[in-house]
Amino acid sequence: MKRAENMFDLVIENGICFISGNFVESNIGIINNKIAYVGKESIKGREKINARGCLVLPGFFNAHTHSAMTILRGYAEGLPLDKWLDKVWKIEAMLDERSIYIASMLACIEMLKNGITCFSDMYIHMDSVARAVEETGIRAVLGYGMADRGSEERMEKELKIALDFIKNCENKERIKPMLTPHAIYTCSPEFLSRINDLANEMGLIKHIHASETLWEVKESKKKFGKTPIKLLDDIKFLDQRTVLAHCVWLSDDEINLIANRRTSVAHCPSSNLKLSSGIAKIAEMTENGVNVAIGTDGAASNNMLNIFSEIRLSALLQQLRKKFLSPVKYLEMATKNGYRAYGIDGGEIEKGKIADIIVVEPKIHQMPIYNYANSLVFSSNGCEVRDVIVNGKIVVEDRTPINVDDEKVVDQISKLKEKILGKA
Amino acid sequence: MKRAENMFDLVIENGICFISGNFVESNIGIINNKIAYVGKESIKGREKINARGCLVLPGFFNAHTHSAMTILRGYAEGLPLDKWLDKVWKIEAMLDERSIYIASMLACIEMLKNGITCFSDMYIHMDSVARAVEETGIRAVLGYGMADRGSEERMEKELKIALDFIKNCENKERIKPMLTPHAIYTCSPEFLSRINDLANEMGLIKHIHASETLWEVKESKKKFGKTPIKLLDDIKFLDQRTVLAHCVWLSDDEINLIANRRTSVAHCPSSNLKLSSGIAKIAEMTENGVNVAIGTDGAASNNMLNIFSEIRLSALLQQLRKKFLSPVKYLEMATKNGYRAYGIDGGEIEKGKIADIIVVEPKIHQMPIYNYANSLVFSSNGCEVRDVIVNGKIVVEDRTPINVDDEKVVDQISKLKEKILGKA
Repeated sequence: MKRAENMFDLVIENGICFISGNFVESNIGIINNKIAYVGKESIKGREKINARGCLVLPGFFNAHTHSAMTILRGYAEGLPLDKWLDKVWKIEAMLDERSIYIASMLACIEMLKNGITCFSDMYIHMDSVARAVEETGIRAVLGYGMADRGSEERMEKELKIALDFIKNCENKERIKPMLTPHAIYTCSPEFLSRINDLANEMGLIKHIHASETLWEVKESKKKFGKTPIKLLDDIKFLDQRTVLAHCVWLSDDEINLIANRRTSVAHCPSSNLKLSSGIAKIAEMTENGVNVAIGTDGAASNNMLNIFSEIRLSALLQQLRKKFLSPVKYLEMATKNGYRAYGIDGGEIEKGKIADIIVVEPKIHQMPIYNYANSLVFSSNGCEVRDVIVNGKIVVEDRTPINVDDEKVVDQISKLKEKILGKA
Repeated sequence: MKRAENMFDLVIENGICFISGNFVESNIGIINNKIAYVGKESIKGREKINARGCLVLPGFFNAHTHSAMTILRGYAEGLPLDKWLDKVWKIEAMLDERSIYIASMLACIEMLKNGITCFSDMYIHMDSVARAVEETGIRAVLGYGMADRGSEERMEKELKIALDFIKNCENKERIKPMLTPHAIYTCSPEFLSRINDLANEMGLIKHIHASETLWEVKESKKKFGKTPIKLLDDIKFLDQRTVLAHCVWLSDDEINLIANRRTSVAHCPSSNLKLSSGIAKIAEMTENGVNVAIGTDGAASNNMLNIFSEIRLSALLQQLRKKFLSPVKYLEMATKNGYRAYGIDGGEIEKGKIADIIVVEPKIHQMPIYNYANSLVFSSNGCEVRDVIVNGKIVVEDRTPINVDDEKVVDQISKLKEKILGKA
């Protein structure tokens, strides 16, 4: 074991590691930002985490969110979608660079504490989101949420904002930029086609909301004579660098089509309930080979940024549908499927993969443990996450984010809330 | 304010208290096991809890559980109901007094940590459950789960066990005994009728599973020519001392009937999803005046004993159904509706009520807070509960249960699990 004789930058030892669907006691050696050793040998590290009695997992990938929507968390509750949107849009129009930065800081801290090592975000003022990602130490795939609403002038403006942001991301190690048109009902087919060409040229990920509500599908049929998925396929938008958020309303044929195109789905069960959208056919997608990842959506429609809540809810909802997937499948949705969807070589505890890793400490509410996957999927709420490593660096140690001052961020978000309430 | 000049046994000061559907900064004075003062005056106490920056709520009432089923938590996952039951029944047959005691200790500790101050439990070896209740300091309404399965001999045996247990509960301050026939498909109408007469004579609460699955309703119609609710009503079982667990499959007429009979419902959303039972019409029940309380069911079908998870899920599921109740309603289901269902004069922060109270410390994942009820219902996972008072006594202080040795219980349950796996 030559590798084991080396000195690693960071060693996670004695943990029970989630490797290829199993839980195996292993030591993990990290060099720079990558996993360089996984095995039983005792290894040396400049820094060490003792994970005895803990579970060690690839970090969670939050495959669809709008992180700065934390500023709207709990602002509009107990309302149907149209009234909810009225309230949300009114606030969104007030948000500037600074407020997006503060709200994204809050989101990044919450996500890290819940074991999320990477998230996908389409929203506004993305340079502010990127700043929060850089400061907190999390990883992200970011895009400016574009909508031309049929206007050619607006199309140019939107593209410029998106491309400028992509340029600004050069040399940011933990940020991968992407192209993110909002949806087929806010972006014209011409615009989507142009975005698609650009994505192909530049080798970029595309992320879009699709088939979220029955309204969207009906509108698409009325306006274009076809479903959102068929529309996207007809303009060649669906490929392996595409991630579709929601996909609540898919036919069996569409599930097969998405599987064949190797397109990924970002499933957001809480949001789909909260906004009365529906229950996605996750079991059928998984059985038919679709790469399904899990997202929280924004905090206004959830309201937590917590992947443990999402996988538990996802599993419960599929069981309501009498569809029984193995709990391991939900852990994979939360980890490697997200990394795969966004083309990042992580999400697995394996030599050569990016070192985004979490250490989870079992709690009394999970006892006794017959099967680790069952405990993680059905009995966890997030407070079990002890340490978080992103890109080979410890960013949460014993439940405390180490790059940021939580209290300052809580103070800032509270002041921002007061300011918003003053104007709303 | 004469009362305010007194010395109280325990004072909870400076908290933002949930009182009559609102959140009001108040001090609470407790004498013996009752709330003796609620108001703005500064009051003196032999013991004090400083709740500044915290929310103070009536304790949660877990209106339907089988606490010792923690021993089965995570044992059978990813299985449809029939296969799940095969595995569960095999283990249940092995359970003895000691295993029920250990598993109930685990459940009581978990519930207390999650802010549950009282629970309703029907199961086996109830003296062991009562022992765990006494030792941990929680409150409970307990009954032996009876099933005659049509045998007169069994009827007598079951009644004797139930009545012996009720007798054993005399002089146990925090335990209220009840009569708990399992369900209409395991108990004959004659047996249910006899239980009903006994309950009337003895002034006891009755608790039964009812209309949990479509199968149960169909079987009832086939066998008795009527639904479970109609059957129960025909034998006069439905009154204000009756609590029906689940009620997933109710007609509009049945909702009205239950409301008219002033019968309560114990709603268990996680369990209803996990076992593919369905989604209860909680919004319609509430709007029609049914007293709806919230339960976790047993840990084998949830898998957490956490009321925060249940109210969030309940609200999300109703919103999926396009039914938007105010978040305050869900807080009431979790607190006063449970106490009311089981005839215990608590669940409200009000002078004269039993002092079952929790102190909840807002966390970063709830920020910013526009509205306390929204935060508690949609953004909480249980780890926010800081202190718990049952019957006027502090039983959890700064997240640590003070009457029990958690580690010992975790060790005991782990050994019990090994023993069970050895025999299974």
